[in-house]
Amino acid sequence: MDIKVGRQAIAEATEKLKNWGRWGKDDQIGTLNHVKPEDVVKAAGLIRRGKVFALGIPLDSNGPQTGLFGGRFNPIHQMLATGTDAIAGRQDWNKIRYADDTLNLCVQGATHWDALGHIFYEDKAYNGYDAKLIDAKGLNVLGIEHSKNKMIGRGDFVIIRTGQMERCLEEKKWGGYAGGDAPGVKFENCYWCQDKEIAAICTDTWGVEVRPNETTEANQPWHWVVIPAMGLCMGEIFYLKELAEDCAADKIYEFFFCGPPLIISGGTGSPINPQAIK
Amino acid sequence: MDIKVGRQAIAEATEKLKNWGRWGKDDQIGTLNHVKPEDVVKAAGLIRRGKVFALGIPLDSNGPQTGLFGGRFNPIHQMLATGTDAIAGRQDWNKIRYADDTLNLCVQGATHWDALGHIFYEDKAYNGYDAKLIDAKGLNVLGIEHSKNKMIGRGDFVIIRTGQMERCLEEKKWGGYAGGDAPGVKFENCYWCQDKEIAAICTDTWGVEVRPNETTEANQPWHWVVIPAMGLCMGEIFYLKELAEDCAADKIYEFFFCGPPLIISGGTGSPINPQAIK
Amino acid sequence: MDIKVGRQAIAEATEKLKNWGRWGKDDQIGTLNHVKPEDVVKAAGLIRRGKVFALGIPLDSNGPQTGLFGGRFNPIHQMLATGTDAIAGRQDWNKIRYADDTLNLCVQGATHWDALGHIFYEDKAYNGYDAKLIDAKGLNVLGIEHSKNKMIGRGDFVIIRTGQMERCLEEKKWGGYAGGDAPGVKFENCYWCQDKEIAAICTDTWGVEVRPNETTEANQPWHWVVIPAMGLCMGEIFYLKELAEDCAADKIYEFFFCGPPLIISGGTGSPINPQAIK
Amino acid sequence: MDIKVGRQAIAEATEKLKNWGRWGKDDQIGTLNHVKPEDVVKAAGLIRRGKVFALGIPLDSNGPQTGLFGGRFNPIHQMLATGTDAIAGRQDWNKIRYADDTLNLCVQGATHWDALGHIFYEDKAYNGYDAKLIDAKGLNVLGIEHSKNKMIGRGDFVIIRTGQMERCLEEKKWGGYAGGDAPGVKFENCYWCQDKEIAAICTDTWGVEVRPNETTEANQPWHWVVIPAMGLCMGEIFYLKELAEDCAADKIYEFFFCGPPLIISGGTGSPINPQAIK
Repeated sequence: MDIKVGRQAIAEATEKLKNWGRWGKDDQIGTLNHVKPEDVVKAAGLIRRGKVFALGIPLDSNGPQTGLFGGRFNPIHQMLATGTDAIAGRQDWNKIRYADDTLNLCVQGATHWDALGHIFYEDKAYNGYDAKLIDAKGLNVLGIEHSKNKMIGRGDFVIIRTGQMERCLEEKKWGGYAGGDAPGVKFENCYWCQDKEIAAICTDTWGVEVRPNETTEANQPWHWVVIPAMGLCMGEIFYLKELAEDCAADKIYEFFFCGPPLIISGGTGSPINPQAIK
Repeated sequence: MDIKVGRQAIAEATEKLKNWGRWGKDDQIGTLNHVKPEDVVKAAGLIRRGKVFALGIPLDSNGPQTGLFGGRFNPIHQMLATGTDAIAGRQDWNKIRYADDTLNLCVQGATHWDALGHIFYEDKAYNGYDAKLIDAKGLNVLGIEHSKNKMIGRGDFVIIRTGQMERCLEEKKWGGYAGGDAPGVKFENCYWCQDKEIAAICTDTWGVEVRPNETTEANQPWHWVVIPAMGLCMGEIFYLKELAEDCAADKIYEFFFCGPPLIISGGTGSPINPQAIK
Repeated sequence: MDIKVGRQAIAEATEKLKNWGRWGKDDQIGTLNHVKPEDVVKAAGLIRRGKVFALGIPLDSNGPQTGLFGGRFNPIHQMLATGTDAIAGRQDWNKIRYADDTLNLCVQGATHWDALGHIFYEDKAYNGYDAKLIDAKGLNVLGIEHSKNKMIGRGDFVIIRTGQMERCLEEKKWGGYAGGDAPGVKFENCYWCQDKEIAAICTDTWGVEVRPNETTEANQPWHWVVIPAMGLCMGEIFYLKELAEDCAADKIYEFFFCGPPLIISGGTGSPINPQAIK
Repeated sequence: MDIKVGRQAIAEATEKLKNWGRWGKDDQIGTLNHVKPEDVVKAAGLIRRGKVFALGIPLDSNGPQTGLFGGRFNPIHQMLATGTDAIAGRQDWNKIRYADDTLNLCVQGATHWDALGHIFYEDKAYNGYDAKLIDAKGLNVLGIEHSKNKMIGRGDFVIIRTGQMERCLEEKKWGGYAGGDAPGVKFENCYWCQDKEIAAICTDTWGVEVRPNETTEANQPWHWVVIPAMGLCMGEIFYLKELAEDCAADKIYEFFFCGPPLIISGGTGSPINPQAIK
């Protein structure tokens, strides 16, 4: 394919790849409709050794957010009750000794799913929903809660390792990782995803697609098409090192995949710790 | 068994059931050690229809916290970018139209795992760790991050439905659900869990064990034993209605279970959306 | 005056009382322009006994928010470092023993100022600013930061005590205080404020004006006029008991007033602890 | 004075300067007791021109916290309701158009007062209170709420300008400002403060005292003495540029000072926007 990426190419791809109405006018989950119960059953057959890989990164103040992208911050973890309180006798009136805590995080700040209400094309979200339905109260449509039992399967979930995260982890420096330049798929990949009926595409980068952008006319042009037009599910900031090494060792590049989102009502996505099981 | 529940019974059970050192002096995951790779493989065989049940409750301001328990609050979901901003042209300088958000929540406020550093007996946590290692910075030992790829299996994960949550949902009123009285296991259940080598025990209530407490000498006496002495993994506030109905219909009460925690560094637990797959 | 309160009356009052452009087309502080340096000097003359009254209510989980109004919650205070950590030796690596903390609060959840960007009439904010300038990033115009050294004076700051808060405090029950019914000024008061060149109006209720609303056509009709048309500064949820008692005792109902807002960039208001000094 | 700063000097100064019991065994405000009503009256006489200086810095994501000090972060400001929602018609069901917001901040992250429960010497806080009374619930003693109407006066409030903040603001780079090296008072200043009966000492740096520390035996050795032993009130991160320029111009270096803290129950301090009035 030889596409000159820009507003025109986006408009064309939108027209050609639009899945609006394909799964009903009220559909909220887009390409996750590609996963059928029989796919889940078949995927279970890939569990042969009982080896489990956690694909999330730690949620803490050492996360990848460095202020580059729109107000995002690293997770803030704070205690409500501590062991030091316990041994100082501060809890004994309550006849139990315990620790408790809170977490304040950007839903898309570390390993996460994007919900379909995350990106708009002009004034519309996926399936033709008006973007105004996503307001300060949250996503009244297309929130991540609709995918609560849908993130399970095998080959429908394409996972791409670029190695960018591993370089950052090795260098102990996130630098421009979140919000900056990155290896990733080209714009034309949107056609491939549609053709292959991919349910979800996931990478070890912050935004799946290649950066710098392939055009100056749009920021993340591939996003403009795959989310609002196609309703493609997307996973970002996946930790893939150990899984990749295992695949390289046994030459088996498929596995059972289970990455349940939290049921965040009206969330633009969810922090996750997806599991690959071989 | 005929146990008079109280400090004496707790001390005795602690002595008899203590798993400290059983899986090494540095062990951080307790009874999750019972799950072997072959158990995961066998569990996969339970996936026959590809039907998936999400066992989490929604994370939003309608959650179960009503102020009864130690400063816990319902999830606070706030937007960083909205569709209304997008259509007002407020984002166009950036050449992308999007929504983004944050979530501030109590780790144990809705459907969640407890980590082993959540409860102390006297000055000690599980495996003999000093409770002072759990301070205002978080859990320097026994945090939930150690279980990141361990919450997968079948019968080792015991799931108990009392129906209490369903009553609350029907009445649209949480009342004293979180922190108050509840149906649940008796104190003596700790012996059964040890004997059966249970990996984790989960319920649709806020604290697994029966309330009011079986004694006035301790608040949640079963917790005093199963977490610090045994290192038993615990899941709470599970949503079980649809799974239970399906089990009643097909008479099959076992399934593949996958409930990955978020990798919260030093967390006393993790919000989750566990999946039961039949 | 005999006004039939409703959309028509709002439109009329808006037309008659509009201060747009009165203090320049870039003005951000509205009626606070009424306070002149000489007023501050005169106000200082009211400090005769050196008695200071704090007019704020405590910021904690016992605050007035009960979920009635748009997602507002009571302040969440959490520790970053504690004395119990200190005495457990957890800080000694750092050669200092200390406590530290955070506060997460709704800007208008307790005693506070409203900023002029808080209320819109149709598509406009005060001084003709487009409401779209107030987006998910905050108030790009008319934020509270513009009043950072303006909340000082005497009679220009009118303070009204209804006694509603004191009843709540006595009953130890906020009930519908924040967001519900309240004693307060009638709609027609907007004409009086304009005529008297009031700089700010403050009360011990959550919204200054009387509730239930005087019409079904608008929620808080007085707000519709005084903020977007007039640019009137407003203080709410003031604690007035001790000040009122002192005034009743010495029959002096004027005082030096100093209620500096926090400089919250783009804030719709600020939590405050105003001081009345006699 | 010629003091070799270290643990020995701290112990000696603690012994000599201890104000425990000086203002009663239940005293919570330490040196603020030095301010008498007549001082407030006299201070009022300094208001001659009605010129007001705001001494706070803006509370936003451009604040001085860069991760150097114990988990502190810059203020996080988020909207609950926006003008873009309003003009999109998303609020019209409620018959009012408005903006609303929240602020999540470190109490000591920008311009602030320290409360007396902020620093401990060995196991004790000011006035002999046990440090264990400061736990994960907050400051059960010595919280900032006790100073709610005490931060008013003149010469008792010493304000020191080093110029460090102005250099940072000019360079648009906070660098190591918060938590790092700084100009400031020497250890021996504690004797001077006691002798002069200073009520509060305030600077344009993050910690008043000079850094690097004058000893390797203690971090911030002056803090070890002035807060727990003396109960000295301290203001930090004050913005002094305009005030300083005005004082240099009119040669009048005194003014009415009013810096009310928020009434944060159990707070280690309070964000403030103090006012200097000439």
